[in-house]
Amino acid sequence: MRIKQMLFILNKVYKEPIMGQNLPKGFQFFSDHVGIKADQKDLGIIVAENVCHAAAVFTKNKLCGVSIPIGQEKLHNNELQAIVVTSGIANVATGAQGSANAEAICAAVAEDLKIASQNVLPSATGVIGPQLPIAKILPKIHHISASLTSDYHDFVKAISTTDTKIKARSIKIGDATILAVGKGSGMIEPNMATMLVYMMTDANIEKSTLYAMLKEAVDQSFNVMSVDTDTSTSDTVVLMANGLAGAVAPGAFQNGLNEVTRALAEDIVSDAEGATKVIEVNVTGWQDSQQGKIIGKAVVNSPLVKTAINGADPNWGRLVMAIGKTQIVGLNFESLSLKFGDYLIFDHGNEYSKNLLNIEQYLKNNEKVSIYIDLGMAPAAETVSVLGCDLSKEYVEINSAYTS
Amino acid sequence: MRIKQMLFILNKVYKEPIMGQNLPKGFQFFSDHVGIKADQKDLGIIVAENVCHAAAVFTKNKLCGVSIPIGQEKLHNNELQAIVVTSGIANVATGAQGSANAEAICAAVAEDLKIASQNVLPSATGVIGPQLPIAKILPKIHHISASLTSDYHDFVKAISTTDTKIKARSIKIGDATILAVGKGSGMIEPNMATMLVYMMTDANIEKSTLYAMLKEAVDQSFNVMSVDTDTSTSDTVVLMANGLAGAVAPGAFQNGLNEVTRALAEDIVSDAEGATKVIEVNVTGWQDSQQGKIIGKAVVNSPLVKTAINGADPNWGRLVMAIGKTQIVGLNFESLSLKFGDYLIFDHGNEYSKNLLNIEQYLKNNEKVSIYIDLGMAPAAETVSVLGCDLSKEYVEINSAYTS
Repeated sequence: MRIKQMLFILNKVYKEPIMGQNLPKGFQFFSDHVGIKADQKDLGIIVAENVCHAAAVFTKNKLCGVSIPIGQEKLHNNELQAIVVTSGIANVATGAQGSANAEAICAAVAEDLKIASQNVLPSATGVIGPQLPIAKILPKIHHISASLTSDYHDFVKAISTTDTKIKARSIKIGDATILAVGKGSGMIEPNMATMLVYMMTDANIEKSTLYAMLKEAVDQSFNVMSVDTDTSTSDTVVLMANGLAGAVAPGAFQNGLNEVTRALAEDIVSDAEGATKVIEVNVTGWQDSQQGKIIGKAVVNSPLVKTAINGADPNWGRLVMAIGKTQIVGLNFESLSLKFGDYLIFDHGNEYSKNLLNIEQYLKNNEKVSIYIDLGMAPAAETVSVLGCDLSKEYVEINSAYTS
Repeated sequence: MRIKQMLFILNKVYKEPIMGQNLPKGFQFFSDHVGIKADQKDLGIIVAENVCHAAAVFTKNKLCGVSIPIGQEKLHNNELQAIVVTSGIANVATGAQGSANAEAICAAVAEDLKIASQNVLPSATGVIGPQLPIAKILPKIHHISASLTSDYHDFVKAISTTDTKIKARSIKIGDATILAVGKGSGMIEPNMATMLVYMMTDANIEKSTLYAMLKEAVDQSFNVMSVDTDTSTSDTVVLMANGLAGAVAPGAFQNGLNEVTRALAEDIVSDAEGATKVIEVNVTGWQDSQQGKIIGKAVVNSPLVKTAINGADPNWGRLVMAIGKTQIVGLNFESLSLKFGDYLIFDHGNEYSKNLLNIEQYLKNNEKVSIYIDLGMAPAAETVSVLGCDLSKEYVEINSAYTS
């Protein structure tokens, strides 16, 4: 959860484009067109100059892609040196042939780079069902080292599908840096994981603590975000730490990791399919943070809330509906308070209809809409802050087209 | 759940328009314009000529309208004689004033009809937040008897909001008849209840069994239906039995009630906001029926499945995603089987891509799309059949307009 003390963090989170000293030392990128997509780059590789401490969280979708169990197995020793991503076909529902293809791609990358295949993580995104065109892909994986670059842009473009913007964020923690890059703009309600996000740091972080740190960061960023309630079969977040910048204070690193993941999550919802507005739902006054998360998710996932915000309609009754449908015991009108931005609309049983026009203007004029819900069921000390986006005709347009 | 033996029921379910002997004896209707809406009828009353045995199920939304607790209290003795419905304002989040208004409307109806106010159920649908214009409404409630008619059409029009069709179904069970009328086309994922549905029968059914019968019927109809995942604050289903046609066999009555509620549920999803297609998801091979319901709901509620069907896109990978995101233990590709209509697309690990064009044609040419999911986790003896609809640009258009 995003909690209050995080407001005191003053580290600057760098946005796109990120260059030079705001990139971590020791990581490089490769990208190419290998024939999965018609005419766009569709293969990306991240290469670390040494073996990194690493941790990852994956989709909880039970019908997951073949990359997921392979990745889980490879992360057992908390080490990685490269990540190879194919884009256009998700390698899901592809059985033993799909697994063999993923392993063959990792082996080819390892052989070309002269590193251990065990330290190469496979990832895939795209259409569910078809097999990868392995005969086209393997011959393209050679002389990787000759084409490596510290510029991540072509790598991110190569792994993107319906994304319209490059998603990348970085943050400095002392001499160290965290870089997070990713893709994703539909089929997004990650659960314990997310779309594809790769994070690299030159901080020296203990293997034993890396997973817990990643999990905390993911829980207050990608796990409180939803575009369309649809949990992908391939969601993956990986963090690689190569140690080249030396040790940093664990608390400072955790705060930086939280900030950079939250910023990247906001990049993802703002580039969601058809989205015109980011919706941030801040829930206080819950008895436990799980209640806050359930209610925040119910609001950002409600088609009627999402369409109202798309149309700048101050239809606060839909917030009431979405909160109440969670069936959480103790919800009541007498202690409920609702605000859009700075404008109160309902407070302890009373409607503030004089603010309706102000709210309409607020919704019209802002690309990020903040909703504040105080349940009043407990003192409002902490905030659960959930991210989502509006629902537009363009979302329907994009997703009703023939197999995208 | 809709189970196999129901296929053997041969009773004809009558559709709109229903007249004469296909209506139950002893129920009449009233409708008028009372000034909630600008220029449409907005008050409807159902009147029984005698006190009826009655049962009702209501929304589980915790921030429900004031009509809900009033109705629950009135149903304690399982008796009703009239139902009064206001349309345009939902009387939700209106506090003590809202409750007093609902009680005043019931009292006015009771006084005019010379019946007990305890036996008049209030119902309301429309925008959440505002108070009812009670000073306009009360003077209009007089001389009801002079305007009563056995034709339900104007009543249903008066209670409708964004509905574009009259929803009514009836069925004969021996000499008795069940009539079900209702409204609802958005904010629909009922939970233990549904939108507004009123059912009248002249069968003589014991008070003590009426609720259980209603619950069984609702569980295999309105409770396995979703338009948009949004559970209304005012959902209500009421069944009134006046006994004028004498006793009927309880099993035959239950079957008839199941059939007529299922048919009305299908009417509601087919007239859902912006919908162009009904989606029926039939799930077999589950270990318990709750798994079947969760998976069926996950599929009909997936925006990516709904938009694919809107675009006649045979994107079966989205079924895989929606099934897997339920995280039900035991799901696996090796025992999974997927069909659209008569066309197999995935079976025990193998894709039948030769059927893709047939499925595309099937989706293009049918207003009702049947999806068959066999999980293969247990013998496929029974089917859970969930109803939904596609997601179109028109849904976004309707719901992004200023406070609808």
